[in-house]
Amino acid sequence: MSNPSLLILPGDGIGPEVMAEVRKIITWFGDKRGITFDVSEDLVGGCAYDAHGVPLTDETMAKAQEVDAVLLGAVGGPKYDSLDFSVKPERGLLRLRKEMDLFSNLRPAQCFDALADFSSLKKNVVAGLDIMIIRELTSGVYFGEPRGIIREGNERVGINTQRYTESEIARVARSAFEMARKRSNKVCSMEKANVMESGILWREVVQEIHDAEYPDVELSHMYADAGAMQLTRWPKQFDVIVTDNLFGDLLSDLAAMLTGSLGMLPSASLGAPMANGRPKALYEPVHGSAPDIAGQEKANPCACILSFAMALRYSFDLGDEATRLEAAVEKVLADGVRTADLLNEEGVTPATTSQMGDAVVAAL
Amino acid sequence: MSNPSLLILPGDGIGPEVMAEVRKIITWFGDKRGITFDVSEDLVGGCAYDAHGVPLTDETMAKAQEVDAVLLGAVGGPKYDSLDFSVKPERGLLRLRKEMDLFSNLRPAQCFDALADFSSLKKNVVAGLDIMIIRELTSGVYFGEPRGIIREGNERVGINTQRYTESEIARVARSAFEMARKRSNKVCSMEKANVMESGILWREVVQEIHDAEYPDVELSHMYADAGAMQLTRWPKQFDVIVTDNLFGDLLSDLAAMLTGSLGMLPSASLGAPMANGRPKALYEPVHGSAPDIAGQEKANPCACILSFAMALRYSFDLGDEATRLEAAVEKVLADGVRTADLLNEEGVTPATTSQMGDAVVAAL
Ligand SMILES: CC(C)[C@H](C(=O)O)[C@@H](O)C(=O)O
Ligand SMILES: CC(C)[C@H](C(=O)O)[C@@H](O)C(=O)O
Repeated sequence: MSNPSLLILPGDGIGPEVMAEVRKIITWFGDKRGITFDVSEDLVGGCAYDAHGVPLTDETMAKAQEVDAVLLGAVGGPKYDSLDFSVKPERGLLRLRKEMDLFSNLRPAQCFDALADFSSLKKNVVAGLDIMIIRELTSGVYFGEPRGIIREGNERVGINTQRYTESEIARVARSAFEMARKRSNKVCSMEKANVMESGILWREVVQEIHDAEYPDVELSHMYADAGAMQLTRWPKQFDVIVTDNLFGDLLSDLAAMLTGSLGMLPSASLGAPMANGRPKALYEPVHGSAPDIAGQEKANPCACILSFAMALRYSFDLGDEATRLEAAVEKVLADGVRTADLLNEEGVTPATTSQMGDAVVAAL
Repeated sequence: MSNPSLLILPGDGIGPEVMAEVRKIITWFGDKRGITFDVSEDLVGGCAYDAHGVPLTDETMAKAQEVDAVLLGAVGGPKYDSLDFSVKPERGLLRLRKEMDLFSNLRPAQCFDALADFSSLKKNVVAGLDIMIIRELTSGVYFGEPRGIIREGNERVGINTQRYTESEIARVARSAFEMARKRSNKVCSMEKANVMESGILWREVVQEIHDAEYPDVELSHMYADAGAMQLTRWPKQFDVIVTDNLFGDLLSDLAAMLTGSLGMLPSASLGAPMANGRPKALYEPVHGSAPDIAGQEKANPCACILSFAMALRYSFDLGDEATRLEAAVEKVLADGVRTADLLNEEGVTPATTSQMGDAVVAAL
């Protein structure tokens, strides 16, 4: 049997630096655990635009469709701010999500014990926090048509369309209920059904799927604005949250920030099963390309390393190996090895990106 | 000259209770300061539906158009959850906002010194916090057409339209820049220009209005997801935030919750100047109708009282009287008078809604 294949897309900003550390982890798994991947690498985002005039070439897109999993660093940067919308770095990422049909975006917001002090929230509010936001990723206002800037009389009008079909809602709801069964068996669905018809349909379909297929799971509904409040007030009331693409964008970033350690948070974007039974999958850290610190060996590689751990779990059925890697990261934190983002004392020299990666390898 | 006119719409849930306390304040201003209003009262929301089958009658709508200011309590409740979308309590409020063309929604998020401990955030993060979110209130996905739930093939599709014209963006941008000049001269505008064309237009128009009319104000732009993060991480970096209807809904609720005292936060929704020079205006607390505690004299009337203070300032040019009322509320808090929502010690008997109102009157 051939090795499972992995396409690495480091992208822009700190992407290449943090990905270099993941490479060390991949090498370790090959050397020490006999788990070997066929790894290829390619461009996405601003660097792809620089090389090819588009943020993702058709060739790279085709490769992403063929591999068992894609691991992405980050895209974007001020250098590309003035580019036309159609070739902005983000379009590369959005094209991957859309064409691979990665409808279920798993965004764990987990507070690491060793880092609870870093949160802007009180320690008792966030210590032990462990929630999973499931964000719909291939539809909604991100992709709905019509869209664009048109001229009407003598003024411009900006238009986007929020659009959800029943089956789009149903499949992400199922993925949330499945996840809940592996966790605390509890789902909260968020929308604005009091204002938007798409929210009404969202609520109805989630409820229908629940009643017909997952009556054992506890389901509640909340308006997204109340959700933002409740996440801020007492996040531990939640376990699995399911929501649409745009609300998920804001709410998962909010939840990530609650933990105080954005540099630690991974994500998985999953689609339908392929012929080999593995889901189409893309893994990426929640943090962005952080152009301000790029190339300075200051970035925290843990979010990207933990994204690879999610790949082990969700793409390669190697849950034990994923747990091993996650434990190694926790051990490194407990030992006090810290990149600059995880330090608030004066006078302590932070670990560099590569020292942090080395420490994780050593802990493995 | 006739007295200025005020239409009171207590609405549902705790609305009537908190409004009763505002009545005491209005009486005090008449008796002690010779500031008299022509007050009328009417129904909005679920109670209007119960009485008339609609959440806002045409007569009430017409009255709201004629008065100098509207003061609203809250709308909604589980009793009305199964009503058709078109007659839900919220539609009454949305109709007022739309037909009065109240495009500029002022949502101060202010942390009261005496209450900083109530925040789920660390005291140093929120103590002294004082930001003003200006939310566009009459357009965007709340009102865009087409909208609805349609049938396509054999499935339902939920559709809403995000739509902003140049002039809609320009007028709310101006209102933010004007506000900034009265505060710290700093505006941060939030959208998702990296994903939505309506966000691109938003960013462009805000920048154009700035460059042409308000070059003295410091302007920055932020993606709304990053905005949610930064509000959570270090809210004091912001002074005036301007954003669209939907992002404003989530972000202003998030900002409100940061302060830890939702029961304290007022809002103003302002439109264009009327013939008498006063802006069309509606004032309401940020909190909802809280059906779980309605009718129990547990609600905190301060948000509604402070909404009346905003009316004094923005509708009646009585800034000094507004400051007097705000100071009275702060004094009551400093004296330790607390409704149940502002208490976390055991064994202390909370003040009732009407005791709280009486205390404010006494402090005046
Ligand atoms: C980079 C951007 C297009 C993206 C999004 O808005 O989805 C990002 O914020 C995210 O959450 O992954
Ligand atoms: C009640 C509801 C329609 C309303 C809104 O979504 O605007 C509320 O959440 C608000 O923020 O005033």
